[in-house]
Amino acid sequence: MAGFTEDELVAAVRTILAEDVPGVRLGLGDDAALVEPGPHLVVLTADQLIESVHFRRETTSAHDLGYKALVVNVSDVAAMGGSPRYALVSLGVPKSVEMTWIVELYAGLRDAASEYALAIVGGDTSLSPTVVISIALVGEVAHSLAVTRSGARPGDRVVVTGTLGAAAGGLRIASAQKHDLAAVASKQGRTLLAAHARPVARVGEGQTLAREGATAMMDVSDGLAIDLGRLCRESRVGATVVLPNVPVSPALFELRSALGIEPLELALGGGEDYELLASLPPRAVELTTQLLKDRFGTKLTDIGEIRKGEGLVAIDADGSERPLEAQGWDHFAGT
Amino acid sequence: MAGFTEDELVAAVRTILAEDVPGVRLGLGDDAALVEPGPHLVVLTADQLIESVHFRRETTSAHDLGYKALVVNVSDVAAMGGSPRYALVSLGVPKSVEMTWIVELYAGLRDAASEYALAIVGGDTSLSPTVVISIALVGEVAHSLAVTRSGARPGDRVVVTGTLGAAAGGLRIASAQKHDLAAVASKQGRTLLAAHARPVARVGEGQTLAREGATAMMDVSDGLAIDLGRLCRESRVGATVVLPNVPVSPALFELRSALGIEPLELALGGGEDYELLASLPPRAVELTTQLLKDRFGTKLTDIGEIRKGEGLVAIDADGSERPLEAQGWDHFAGT
Repeated sequence: MAGFTEDELVAAVRTILAEDVPGVRLGLGDDAALVEPGPHLVVLTADQLIESVHFRRETTSAHDLGYKALVVNVSDVAAMGGSPRYALVSLGVPKSVEMTWIVELYAGLRDAASEYALAIVGGDTSLSPTVVISIALVGEVAHSLAVTRSGARPGDRVVVTGTLGAAAGGLRIASAQKHDLAAVASKQGRTLLAAHARPVARVGEGQTLAREGATAMMDVSDGLAIDLGRLCRESRVGATVVLPNVPVSPALFELRSALGIEPLELALGGGEDYELLASLPPRAVELTTQLLKDRFGTKLTDIGEIRKGEGLVAIDADGSERPLEAQGWDHFAGT
Repeated sequence: MAGFTEDELVAAVRTILAEDVPGVRLGLGDDAALVEPGPHLVVLTADQLIESVHFRRETTSAHDLGYKALVVNVSDVAAMGGSPRYALVSLGVPKSVEMTWIVELYAGLRDAASEYALAIVGGDTSLSPTVVISIALVGEVAHSLAVTRSGARPGDRVVVTGTLGAAAGGLRIASAQKHDLAAVASKQGRTLLAAHARPVARVGEGQTLAREGATAMMDVSDGLAIDLGRLCRESRVGATVVLPNVPVSPALFELRSALGIEPLELALGGGEDYELLASLPPRAVELTTQLLKDRFGTKLTDIGEIRKGEGLVAIDADGSERPLEAQGWDHFAGT
């Protein structure tokens, strides 16, 4: 990354991200950005992606990385029932990184910003021993429609959007030492890789779930079991999960033996799906399912029930119950 | 940092930061935070501190680091004439870091938050090969009082708060291989170290400068010469700096020979002072100087003039002029 100064980098970033966005009074390049306040509650979230922990530069394109870094933050706003508006992007890069890599990264950020109709209004760039992308996102949500993790009530159904496990399958492929090339090149292999590289944030789905009465909601970033455990803990309830009903990504079944994976295990324990997990009063499930299908082509699946007490219970096909262990990605335990 | 999980860390952070703050509907622990919108413009800024680039763990206490990480962001809001309100803190730490270190870091963050009356409402924690602290700050400013970098006009005076160079002097002491112990232990040595370790953000001063008609403003984070160059470039003007008028930190003169430093050089080129640099119509200088002294005990110094054209000119004691080179800390050029 020799041969350019911080001011030159900032100028390049401004060129890539230049856009007139309603509500932005002052964007990149000053001490801070200025945006118009809206009438709604302000949603604030932040997430960072760190090289060798969240991604490897050898297996991730800069464009995908920028895109994903923004989408994971959008997903957090979606999980509140909100709309993303403004992002701040702080980037740390080693000297060895080429300017073209940085430009591609910002192009990915710009594409995600455009996809989700938000503006990147500020941030920071500096040297770093390893690539670090820190994003803070400001969104908005109508006062009556904000959905937290803490409102689930016994009797509510547990629902989840889309399918689960594909991102974890893609990660398996991307980080495999030895590849089964036929499996990787197959339609299913590419589906899994894409799920990991370019996740989708369920913004419209989150707003529909909020309007239809979701009592609690979060996105599945660390794995269904661990994340449902968190939702239940915040709501001071327990939950059942009917294992045969968990919407496992179909591509996982096709590549089961080629990749040596257990599809249900990845669906329960694999992270980074960014689907929405919510509790919904039983009477609202049918209509909400229909609305998500009609409006977004997104499947909503009823996978279980909120119960009194605490802890998660897995229900097998034969109706037998056993504790569902909170598997998933814990950054510190490293399990 | 063995022996605790991400959920345990989040719980500990929530305990440290627990506080009821007006305007915060939902703080730490959910997918995102929810805060009340205000009537004013929203100020957004982000900055990250990266180990071995911005600090070294061997020479910085965790408490000071947390404190400083927040203050440098508050300074950016101050430089717009705004008030800080909400912060998002994302932390990356290596496995080798002890929980007590993290607790001390958050204690420093909490102390700075309390000092500047803002709330830490969210963020993220994860493993990282090196310590990374990324902060995004949301503030507010009345529509008519926001001051950008781009409004300086020929004839305006160039003013700066406080004194310059002390933080750079402190960094010299902190990173010296061989210490002159008498110099370090002296009152002046401790003044310099404190300036580097615990900077002050000029929030009230920024608001007063804005109200008294500052046409452009920024904080001095990379050094007076480089930062004034940026302000002038954004305003499409040039400026003079009367060198004998630059408010050099007095402690630098006392330790000149002991530390082998050139005080004026550090004042012009050293970063991290976080003083405010502004352009002010000539008629406003006297009153503003008086107000800053009366209200905050802060000195305001007239150091030069905004001129037509471009570039910076240094004026020596004898009135002779020469180009002022933009010295300072560029993260990429590494000068």
